[in-house]
Amino acid sequence: MRDVWVAGAGMTRIGRRAESLSDLMAEAAHAALRDAGLERPDAIVAAAMNPEEFVGDGNFASSTATHMGFAETPAMRIETATSSGAAALYAGFAQIAAGMRHAVLVVGGEKMTHLDTPRVSELIGRSIDHYERSYGATMPALAGLVARALIARNGGAPREMAQVAVKNHANAVRNPYAHFQRAVTVDEVLDSRMVADPLRLLHCCPISDGAAAVVLTADRAAVRITGIGQGMDTLALRHRDALTSFRASRAAARAAFAMAGVGPERVDVAELHDAFAPFELMSLEDLGLVPSGKAGRATLDGETALDGRLPVNPSGGLKARGHPLAATGLAQIVECVWQLTGRAEGRQVQAHVALAQSIGGLATNNWVTLLEAP
Amino acid sequence: MRDVWVAGAGMTRIGRRAESLSDLMAEAAHAALRDAGLERPDAIVAAAMNPEEFVGDGNFASSTATHMGFAETPAMRIETATSSGAAALYAGFAQIAAGMRHAVLVVGGEKMTHLDTPRVSELIGRSIDHYERSYGATMPALAGLVARALIARNGGAPREMAQVAVKNHANAVRNPYAHFQRAVTVDEVLDSRMVADPLRLLHCCPISDGAAAVVLTADRAAVRITGIGQGMDTLALRHRDALTSFRASRAAARAAFAMAGVGPERVDVAELHDAFAPFELMSLEDLGLVPSGKAGRATLDGETALDGRLPVNPSGGLKARGHPLAATGLAQIVECVWQLTGRAEGRQVQAHVALAQSIGGLATNNWVTLLEAP
Repeated sequence: MRDVWVAGAGMTRIGRRAESLSDLMAEAAHAALRDAGLERPDAIVAAAMNPEEFVGDGNFASSTATHMGFAETPAMRIETATSSGAAALYAGFAQIAAGMRHAVLVVGGEKMTHLDTPRVSELIGRSIDHYERSYGATMPALAGLVARALIARNGGAPREMAQVAVKNHANAVRNPYAHFQRAVTVDEVLDSRMVADPLRLLHCCPISDGAAAVVLTADRAAVRITGIGQGMDTLALRHRDALTSFRASRAAARAAFAMAGVGPERVDVAELHDAFAPFELMSLEDLGLVPSGKAGRATLDGETALDGRLPVNPSGGLKARGHPLAATGLAQIVECVWQLTGRAEGRQVQAHVALAQSIGGLATNNWVTLLEAP
Repeated sequence: MRDVWVAGAGMTRIGRRAESLSDLMAEAAHAALRDAGLERPDAIVAAAMNPEEFVGDGNFASSTATHMGFAETPAMRIETATSSGAAALYAGFAQIAAGMRHAVLVVGGEKMTHLDTPRVSELIGRSIDHYERSYGATMPALAGLVARALIARNGGAPREMAQVAVKNHANAVRNPYAHFQRAVTVDEVLDSRMVADPLRLLHCCPISDGAAAVVLTADRAAVRITGIGQGMDTLALRHRDALTSFRASRAAARAAFAMAGVGPERVDVAELHDAFAPFELMSLEDLGLVPSGKAGRATLDGETALDGRLPVNPSGGLKARGHPLAATGLAQIVECVWQLTGRAEGRQVQAHVALAQSIGGLATNNWVTLLEAP
């Protein structure tokens, strides 16, 4: 298996964007190619969760390749719900590792803000098991259920969850690519309108447009992908052993750390999938970054702040950088690359090993990627 | 790069099926696993063109994995429009070739017959370039345009195109998995109702449900994948150099033959993407299986019949076996495996090298796969 390097990274500003999905994809792709100093990739792996219904287009890989000026370059689309960007990275990684391609452009994006929120929520909700959907389950409703279980286990969770949002908004203020450029306080979070008890508006990520891209090559570059792992769980929440830990995250982390040959203690910075604030707390524990039951305390103590022991979501996370679905898993990788190469201006941390974690659906298809600047 | 073998193959009967897409996927998957003598794969690559709109489900990889009893097995979805099954094979191939997985289940399926034909046609039509769509282009309309160009070039094409359908229906009569079990005559084809001048109903493949699967492994098995190539072209037909040849097919063939280290003269049997009968004629020439301009004559002379020099579409092809979109590229591989291992009862040909060709969209994202029984 050949080593796989990240030769370039780029992304669009995340937020409400007037551009088309195709334009956003092209903007991110060409930023990554420029960064890599590459004119044309050998192949393209494109991620989008549901362009058919969000923007009315099919044949996404071909239309993306044509639109960005690479009509003759082999392209395929990857989809694993909200972790599609991370899955696309894996598919590109495999092509390079096998020696089948030499330079692969991996690009993911989504465009949703032109639709009204109930429609977006309905479309995203199709990730949920049929039977649970038939009882009205939505992603926030299921996340609320998980948050309730966390509170029942831990006691003080509401303030801890709020602190995740406060920290990530504070980081996003320093990130010009972020959806939100505004700090929030714990009180603001706890006073914001209820979405799915106990989750309030400011516990939840926004609906965002945007795209992100990396160029993977077999040639040595500044950052190497040292581990990449996937973990799965039952589609239905009711079939799981536990609500306060995601098996899919644990399995993905196990696989990624095994491939990299390092443990969680080596991670210097992490981008975690905080679609809902409690998910960041769970992930800290599921990935072994913080001892079980201690994530809330660590967050309140500032351990995961930009100047803490282990900065988490320096980009602002899904919460404040924003969550353009299939772009997200790659936006995390872009942030990791920027952090590892000293290009995270205004929010730079000291890091040699970075971790990105992406959650697909309600933690049915999760990914952990480890990157290193040797 | 490790060698990649097909350890098992299986598929559902193709046609109007009452079962759900999930049930069809599971039926094909378990048939392939039984054939491989494997209880559980390391990973699943699932293909579907548009389950969101055809059946209302998202998060397809996770829901498929859960439904077939492998909720903990890493799964991802691949989509390249109508060639999604072939693209999924490539993605699975890369994982094995890289040494990242040892046994990968590749499974594709589609369920459409519960929708009415105009709706299916509209959804498939989203594969077409926006601007051409805005003028009312549909897949049959564009295929009709291509057929007209072929006739302008060749003269006698209508009878030649009809003979493709006659041959493939005759083959399907011998295939218990085929959608149609009925022979047709040239006159019946030429008398069937007009769909998109000059294409008549019996020049066109049906709308079908079904699924197909293979198990890929790094362990030596009866059939090896020796070449796998992808070729692309502009989304818009109006941006192409020619209408009577598909660049995407030529590029895919070039890549596949180069990888396998053999030429088209070594191919003993081929499964080609005859969504519209003229496509089989074009593919014969684009892949170098028949000299340029000679495909019609070769077909009328019986060269591509079951007892001819080069049997083409012994399964009945998309025309008569049926075309359940993302299943099709894998159903072709299943037929190739059965032909190479002497299991194509009733339609068995002599073959050591088999070729499968899959077309995505209006020939925007095409694949050629070569298989060999060493």
